[in-house]
Amino acid sequence: MTTMPDPILVLTTGGTIDKLYFDSLSEYRIGESILARLLDVARVTHPVEIVELMRKDSLDLDDADRALIADRVAQATGRRIVITHGTDTMTQTAATLAPLAAARTIVLVGALAPARFAESDAPFNLGMAFATAQVAPPGVYITMNGTVFRADEVVKDRARGAFVPKESVG
Amino acid sequence: MTTMPDPILVLTTGGTIDKLYFDSLSEYRIGESILARLLDVARVTHPVEIVELMRKDSLDLDDADRALIADRVAQATGRRIVITHGTDTMTQTAATLAPLAAARTIVLVGALAPARFAESDAPFNLGMAFATAQVAPPGVYITMNGTVFRADEVVKDRARGAFVPKESVG
Amino acid sequence: MTTMPDPILVLTTGGTIDKLYFDSLSEYRIGESILARLLDVARVTHPVEIVELMRKDSLDLDDADRALIADRVAQATGRRIVITHGTDTMTQTAATLAPLAAARTIVLVGALAPARFAESDAPFNLGMAFATAQVAPPGVYITMNGTVFRADEVVKDRARGAFVPKESVG
Amino acid sequence: MTTMPDPILVLTTGGTIDKLYFDSLSEYRIGESILARLLDVARVTHPVEIVELMRKDSLDLDDADRALIADRVAQATGRRIVITHGTDTMTQTAATLAPLAAARTIVLVGALAPARFAESDAPFNLGMAFATAQVAPPGVYITMNGTVFRADEVVKDRARGAFVPKESVG
Repeated sequence: MTTMPDPILVLTTGGTIDKLYFDSLSEYRIGESILARLLDVARVTHPVEIVELMRKDSLDLDDADRALIADRVAQATGRRIVITHGTDTMTQTAATLAPLAAARTIVLVGALAPARFAESDAPFNLGMAFATAQVAPPGVYITMNGTVFRADEVVKDRARGAFVPKESVG
Repeated sequence: MTTMPDPILVLTTGGTIDKLYFDSLSEYRIGESILARLLDVARVTHPVEIVELMRKDSLDLDDADRALIADRVAQATGRRIVITHGTDTMTQTAATLAPLAAARTIVLVGALAPARFAESDAPFNLGMAFATAQVAPPGVYITMNGTVFRADEVVKDRARGAFVPKESVG
Repeated sequence: MTTMPDPILVLTTGGTIDKLYFDSLSEYRIGESILARLLDVARVTHPVEIVELMRKDSLDLDDADRALIADRVAQATGRRIVITHGTDTMTQTAATLAPLAAARTIVLVGALAPARFAESDAPFNLGMAFATAQVAPPGVYITMNGTVFRADEVVKDRARGAFVPKESVG
Repeated sequence: MTTMPDPILVLTTGGTIDKLYFDSLSEYRIGESILARLLDVARVTHPVEIVELMRKDSLDLDDADRALIADRVAQATGRRIVITHGTDTMTQTAATLAPLAAARTIVLVGALAPARFAESDAPFNLGMAFATAQVAPPGVYITMNGTVFRADEVVKDRARGAFVPKESVG
């Protein structure tokens, strides 16, 4: 929103957004992050720094992983941070990052279908994350299903395959 | 960003984002808006109202067209508005809408490659527009090339095929 | 190749070509066959009958499954048959069908990446299968990796993720 | 169909299959051939030689262009030839090549939607062409709309956007 934009720091941690299919294993695994490719297709000219932190399903993230993510956020010189992350424990990681958000806009984002699918929510979600990182006041956010959520006000409803406001869940 | 989100009004006016290829004419024309389809692929559950206003290349928009767009914005009951629009005269339409933005967040967005292409900036740009409509203070914005621009601070650099800050152009 | 083309019978049995991603399970499963959609995108006007026989990974096919496939081929009134099939045991099913190929052109085809991926070999492979079914003399064929193979002269090289001539494997 | 496959010679001449969108011109033009990319996505391991002859809409091809295509076919050492070509005058070029087809299998192929579209008939059509080049007896063929046509028995029905048998047109 400024004419000399602050760079956006993008940390990748894995999750469905980066899932590949490995025919030799007949299974899907998290591959090299597709982030740079998505930004290229989106013709992003905004300054960006991409750091691949890990390649994990978010159900496999442990305390050490979350400490690593928080460390990297704490070291960031900029105040606009996007983190790609599996959706299942996204809110848990977000809670870990809350103490770091006094002067930073931190956005967690993922996808419900792998970005390598012809029809994936990944590019739209990532676009939301980029805009939120630039425009929203300091805080921790999650951008999924077309909505910018405050991270502490949302839950993933696994059965519906969607993020919904906390109080809407029984 | 709230738990009972305001609906987003999406007005479509045409532009490259909606270009189809008509083999019988060996040419591209603007087709039925692909907006609903893009939101479906992005698994958007946020309340949205889509209104197709016109199907025009933005170089063909005249004063009457811009008056129609402004009228529809003025009638909107909600304050979050996304307008899909060709990129060549996007800033001109944005200027027309400035008087209506005191209490509305209006975001103009388009694409440099048709959304029907396998590799298009459309979904990412639209995601930025949706987030900006929800998060940004009242004003008129353009979300292209990975950046949320204030509409009066940006120009399209046709040769580079990108939106750039005004003062960066000689 | 004739002006009143014989219909092509397409039997779907599952395999990677039809794999979906189920976020609620964080895993991939074989879903509703995408065959009709692929033929629609390819603007196929050739008469086709599609029969979904099963939705299985080819490693899970047993003798009863292969008997069912053979039965359906034996009942076919036309002589041009395409079978979509997982790649791991494709040659085994092909061997089962050899006795039925005296007067039929039977083509087995699959994909190494799910057809729902943005970059999949599925449409190309399926195009090869359709042409082979129309043009090749009676026999059992496999159309993968850009080549029309006689089914008894090919093996899948799992490590390379490709079908190769039998004698090229040590 | 053999274990030591003859290479396939692919000549590209332009046409819708290779159309790009140039935003700076607000128009579509034929770009660098996408052939190599399509074969890579299709995981083709079959030996192929790709020669880009020209980048023209087939309505713009003149006698000199057709002479150039015929010359290149006449010089080919292999007997399996695929030619990508705009659809509007595909049958005219095919007629020019008929004298060269006594000992060659020549397949003309194109697309009704650009290959760069998310939904294009290009990969399927190209798969048909590759199989036909390998399997069909000498002659000139056109592989479009799911059918392998003899080139002298087909016409393009522009209104329907499809290739149909000659006698089916009034």
